[in-house]
Amino acid sequence: MEDSSAPRSARTTFGWLVGASQLLGVTSVVLAGVWMGHYHGGFAWDGSDQEFNLHPLCMILGMVFLQGDAILVYRVFRNEAKKNVKMLHGIIHMLALIVSIVGMAAVFDNHRAAKYPDMYSLHSWCGMATIVLFSLQWVMGLSFFLFPVASSWLRSAYLPVHAFCGLVLLVMAIGTSLLGITEKLLFSIMSTYSSFPPEGIMANILGILLACFGLLVCYIVTKEEYKRPPNPEEESLAVHFKTLTEGSSPTMP
Amino acid sequence: MEDSSAPRSARTTFGWLVGASQLLGVTSVVLAGVWMGHYHGGFAWDGSDQEFNLHPLCMILGMVFLQGDAILVYRVFRNEAKKNVKMLHGIIHMLALIVSIVGMAAVFDNHRAAKYPDMYSLHSWCGMATIVLFSLQWVMGLSFFLFPVASSWLRSAYLPVHAFCGLVLLVMAIGTSLLGITEKLLFSIMSTYSSFPPEGIMANILGILLACFGLLVCYIVTKEEYKRPPNPEEESLAVHFKTLTEGSSPTMP
Repeated sequence: MEDSSAPRSARTTFGWLVGASQLLGVTSVVLAGVWMGHYHGGFAWDGSDQEFNLHPLCMILGMVFLQGDAILVYRVFRNEAKKNVKMLHGIIHMLALIVSIVGMAAVFDNHRAAKYPDMYSLHSWCGMATIVLFSLQWVMGLSFFLFPVASSWLRSAYLPVHAFCGLVLLVMAIGTSLLGITEKLLFSIMSTYSSFPPEGIMANILGILLACFGLLVCYIVTKEEYKRPPNPEEESLAVHFKTLTEGSSPTMP
Repeated sequence: MEDSSAPRSARTTFGWLVGASQLLGVTSVVLAGVWMGHYHGGFAWDGSDQEFNLHPLCMILGMVFLQGDAILVYRVFRNEAKKNVKMLHGIIHMLALIVSIVGMAAVFDNHRAAKYPDMYSLHSWCGMATIVLFSLQWVMGLSFFLFPVASSWLRSAYLPVHAFCGLVLLVMAIGTSLLGITEKLLFSIMSTYSSFPPEGIMANILGILLACFGLLVCYIVTKEEYKRPPNPEEESLAVHFKTLTEGSSPTMP
């Protein structure tokens, strides 16, 4: 009785944590939409400031929420076939990349039309680093794990690096979002920000929710208990590959 | 021959990584000093803007560099007696807290003298959360591990939470620093920031160096290879404590 109750309580906690992360993620995306929609005149694709408004919405949806969820699928579907989970992980990351590219295009297009300079702020430097490294990580993940051009040894050596870089990229995306929130507030409501206007408070709360989302995803992903249980079939296959590539089988002369 | 070369190359890489982290940390503190000293008129303790200048310097020294180094001691001295390393970890964290409190006092004192409002920005919200949680983590670490008032079971259950929260706090401190850099730049050089003035570029570089410092510390600390090797004497003691507290020894009736 006691042996089975521990994993059950772990499963319940896991469910609550994942649920909370989704609530935080969805609320963040909605708040970004309300902020730009209600306080900054909505959305358009005509080079105007309304086109800029797509930037925070797309980056939070793509680089934070979808990126976080693409990472979480390895824990949420940890008992499903690894091939399918990999596929889902790759597809959600691709969606994240597409949405983020739309968000990047929106800000560059708006800057070009309004003759604003580009790439001078810390936010833009961090953001560009994040999107470039994210794209690189996606291409490398695809070639190493979905179309395995790399040897089994190389794949298993790259896996922990890929997982570590994934969390780093999520944290970078969230940090960059908070920098963007601060920039937008100081550009638009600097004179009233210190008197706690609703827009300032809402944008601050958005920043805190994004940080909490990142915290929860990192906690769920790094907790030993929630990791994918070893699959004997996958394991034996991995050992077989390792033996073939390294040629150190004890049965071979 | 091959067996001993692997750990040696791992030790060499470890040395380079720790060296690089120290270079990044020291350079960040120096850059913060140069930024405030050269571009903003130096330091004072009289409520003036020169008192504010102590804020970035102290927070980067205390909350980022010292906090990062306090975490690293568990890897750098992983072959020393655990008791001594614990002590060093606690002392460096105490120094970090003292320096940070000076940095916090500087900004509140300057705001009070200049009648600037407090605690309205995302930077201030994140910063206050970081310092409060840091203090809590320090007090809990002290009572759990240095003056063990908690049972052995509680201590071993708290250890992974303490380690996870430590890295989260370092990341929060770095994120908050980047928000502070962005705020300071927009408050002081908003009209010229986009023409890439030396101050803007230097402050952006400071932000990137801080992020790289955090990345390196997180990498070193989470890499399995660099973790403290299990000590048979400590292990047996831990098992003995576990047996005593949980009363499940097979030798007991």
